[in-house]
Amino acid sequence: MEERLKKQLDFSLEIDKEKNIFRQTHLSGHGRAENDAEHAWHMAVMAYLLREYANETVDISRVILMCLIHDIVEIDAGDTYAYDEKAKETQKAREEAAKERLFSLLPEDQKAELISLFEEFEAYETPESKYAHTIDNLQPLILNNSNDGSDWKEHGVTASTIYKRQRLTSLGSKTLFEQVTDPIIQAHIQKGNLPE
Amino acid sequence: MEERLKKQLDFSLEIDKEKNIFRQTHLSGHGRAENDAEHAWHMAVMAYLLREYANETVDISRVILMCLIHDIVEIDAGDTYAYDEKAKETQKAREEAAKERLFSLLPEDQKAELISLFEEFEAYETPESKYAHTIDNLQPLILNNSNDGSDWKEHGVTASTIYKRQRLTSLGSKTLFEQVTDPIIQAHIQKGNLPE
Repeated sequence: MEERLKKQLDFSLEIDKEKNIFRQTHLSGHGRAENDAEHAWHMAVMAYLLREYANETVDISRVILMCLIHDIVEIDAGDTYAYDEKAKETQKAREEAAKERLFSLLPEDQKAELISLFEEFEAYETPESKYAHTIDNLQPLILNNSNDGSDWKEHGVTASTIYKRQRLTSLGSKTLFEQVTDPIIQAHIQKGNLPE
Repeated sequence: MEERLKKQLDFSLEIDKEKNIFRQTHLSGHGRAENDAEHAWHMAVMAYLLREYANETVDISRVILMCLIHDIVEIDAGDTYAYDEKAKETQKAREEAAKERLFSLLPEDQKAELISLFEEFEAYETPESKYAHTIDNLQPLILNNSNDGSDWKEHGVTASTIYKRQRLTSLGSKTLFEQVTDPIIQAHIQKGNLPE
């Protein structure tokens, strides 16, 4: 087998491990914890179906690729809960090392391409990155909403902490923030699931 | 909230259930059974990385969408193991009913689009469909290979049964069949994991 194909297959097998990286979000129906691979799949489908609500015109294929690969670094770096301030301090360093090791399994051109996509996602600057982050925030929100906010309750998350992160949803889609995110958060504040 | 957005969100929540549909394939490292959502994610990434080996030029965005949505019907229809001939007799009818119920949650235009993509995948005629099937066969093959063929051994699958399905891999990619699929099957025959 050619070296190039061998590297592509080695990487393909390595990323199987993303299915063992569990998140703080739980599946609907008060299910088990969700893993990163499932989350990435769900995001990719949602990003496609909701693309009409992006603030700016986006290259949806690029958004989908970002959704698919954005959590591969967590195979080494682990999941960092969005509302865990202590873990977030070391997140950048952990993910940098992971990025280098994991994407180096690929041929050089594909390593460069996937690192570039990952860094574009992280930088939160392009329309594609902003919209991908909108979906990254929205996907766990609809699961958590379906479970009566149990993920927030478990971690004692407050309304102001939620808003700090979820307000960024409007950078990618004002419509989704105003029509989905904000009403969901408000409803959970009313129900007492999110203390002020 | 507008009716259109409500339908899109209802569908987005419903497909969360795909994460509870388990396959016969096991994760690498002799892990637990894989579910459909993880499988779809893994296929989408592999399809992108290996696209240079497709026999014909493919619209890779369309292939990725096919990978992402091809198993949604299994939320209702359940997983049908590739080598279970009895279950395969009723597969078509089960999946037709599922297709109608699930995609009808979407607005009409998106329902039509996703059904069209699903039917294109099933028909095995376009270059995109043939290549997506190549990856649908290859992804469990590399996991099973990494686990010393344990999924085949568990089901007593024979070499001729494997070849019947896996030969179709060459319709989408002659290179992947000759350089990956065939050598893997041959190695497992040699090791006695696949009786003739």
